[in-house]
Amino acid sequence: MLAMTESTGFLDGIVRGTPVVQRRAMAKAITLLESTRPDHRQQADALLTRLLPHTGGAFRLGISGVPGVGKSTFIEALGLYLIGQGHRVAVLAVDPSSSVSGGSILGDKTRMEHLSVHEKAYIRPSPSSGTLGGVAEKTREAMLVCEAAGYDVVIVETVGVGQSETAVHGMTDMFCLLQLPNAGDDLQAIKKGVMELADLVVINKADIDPDAATRARAQITSSLRLLGLHGNPDHVHHDQKVWHPQVIQISALHGQGVDTFWSAVSEFKRLQTANGRLAARRQHQASAWMWERIDAGLKQRFREHPRVREALDLFTRQVQAGELAASTAARQLLERFD
Amino acid sequence: MLAMTESTGFLDGIVRGTPVVQRRAMAKAITLLESTRPDHRQQADALLTRLLPHTGGAFRLGISGVPGVGKSTFIEALGLYLIGQGHRVAVLAVDPSSSVSGGSILGDKTRMEHLSVHEKAYIRPSPSSGTLGGVAEKTREAMLVCEAAGYDVVIVETVGVGQSETAVHGMTDMFCLLQLPNAGDDLQAIKKGVMELADLVVINKADIDPDAATRARAQITSSLRLLGLHGNPDHVHHDQKVWHPQVIQISALHGQGVDTFWSAVSEFKRLQTANGRLAARRQHQASAWMWERIDAGLKQRFREHPRVREALDLFTRQVQAGELAASTAARQLLERFD
Repeated sequence: MLAMTESTGFLDGIVRGTPVVQRRAMAKAITLLESTRPDHRQQADALLTRLLPHTGGAFRLGISGVPGVGKSTFIEALGLYLIGQGHRVAVLAVDPSSSVSGGSILGDKTRMEHLSVHEKAYIRPSPSSGTLGGVAEKTREAMLVCEAAGYDVVIVETVGVGQSETAVHGMTDMFCLLQLPNAGDDLQAIKKGVMELADLVVINKADIDPDAATRARAQITSSLRLLGLHGNPDHVHHDQKVWHPQVIQISALHGQGVDTFWSAVSEFKRLQTANGRLAARRQHQASAWMWERIDAGLKQRFREHPRVREALDLFTRQVQAGELAASTAARQLLERFD
Repeated sequence: MLAMTESTGFLDGIVRGTPVVQRRAMAKAITLLESTRPDHRQQADALLTRLLPHTGGAFRLGISGVPGVGKSTFIEALGLYLIGQGHRVAVLAVDPSSSVSGGSILGDKTRMEHLSVHEKAYIRPSPSSGTLGGVAEKTREAMLVCEAAGYDVVIVETVGVGQSETAVHGMTDMFCLLQLPNAGDDLQAIKKGVMELADLVVINKADIDPDAATRARAQITSSLRLLGLHGNPDHVHHDQKVWHPQVIQISALHGQGVDTFWSAVSEFKRLQTANGRLAARRQHQASAWMWERIDAGLKQRFREHPRVREALDLFTRQVQAGELAASTAARQLLERFD
């Protein structure tokens, strides 16, 4: 079977190859996983299944922030710091706008000029599959390839287009939000729902306005408390310590605070491993991911069904115009889908 | 056709009946809408379609808050105040726990003893359909019945079980969150994601601890600003005024602040009508509602499909155990669904 042979070849190269062979096998594997050709998809699934036993060993770190917050500078500084500590670092990206705009992040590797050429780093720009669900799925699969290749820190970056923070939060162990010191000002927009995804808020460029950074830190800390993190219904015994979201200040450009950042990440990892939340988060992510893809597939089939297609536009207009009840429209469209 | 005759009879009673006839027709209609019998469902859809031209005239107000915050007292005070201003007030509830527990809210009308017996008020407990989606759908349909009957303020109450705040937010023009004065303390849990749904936060029982209430107000105001409401991607021209979430203090038990509350609601309504957001919100809600019901229907069919059913448990376990990639499992299950 060609598919099996191919995927076995990839697998050996990825898991056991010399640096050069490994890098080539990773690129080939990720290209296969990103392909939309049905026969490739079968090979890709065979490869994924064989890769899985070799995955899960990395710490998966999500990093988000608006353009200009200094993500590339921070990730470069962090990556080099981690390599200095003996880690191997992969950097992936989720950018649903890339198919339209040609990519707003990581399209240009020169933005991380030292990290991108380092042999212990692997940087891959965002796939350009159009929909967020598609882009996120490809990135999630690329993450597994990196883990199988022995990268023990995988950073997934996003600029926060649409719901991309939620997607990155849903595939990482820890989600970090980069902020500018003027976070409390009207100048800086934070999208609804993003702050509360954060396990760690990082105020970058703190050196530019230390007073503002300190005020922002106090304000965000207080808001995070108020945001109901204590009401989080996760199941942890009362005698177990849990992580509470924190706010730290750094200045990535001057290399300040990267060690503080990594201490916080390590403490997060230690606590959430001990109380079982890290494992529970991954398990939950895996089922949620499966259902997300099932939902997307079901909805696509539904939209493409001939009898649904011929009525969907009219029904949608009637529902929006208040001429047809939403629940009635849903029932009648579902009857057409058989 | 029996269905048409029946629904026409209901319709006349609801829209034009004397108070007694109307109340009886409303109760019958809502019971029909809540029925799960397939033949009833057809009649219900026919009724809904005929009701629709008579709906949409009410202001739809969502009110949420944890048990003990004083929702019933507040809604009773508000309802009587509004009736005094010439309004007719309907109170509905979304309580997904009601099918299990027998209902934790509005099961006992005596909790609003004056409002519940007032001829200008209509109070209906939460339907008990089991799933949140089902409960919310029935409540949304009951709201249409109330509007067709000329109730011009519809209050939808929830205690916030599961995602019920999101459901209520998705069917109302304005979402208000009741809080106790100690909102900033660890004592009071706010669920993740709820604060940012709020158009208005109401600190009730402010008289008990005025200092705490003032502190809470300042803190919540600051958090709401930080929460990124300025980053809300809604489409409004820059020269148009938009509503920014506010925080007010009241003491419902002593009847204090109900007028302040209603002023805020009226200002919200005025602004959001002028800038078009109210209409846009309803239109968005209608499509979102249709798709929510389609998704629920598709997922139910998927789960009940014989070839999916025989594999779903095994695949789910394998995905959670990390033996099968989530995306692979999704694709293979979708192949079984035909």
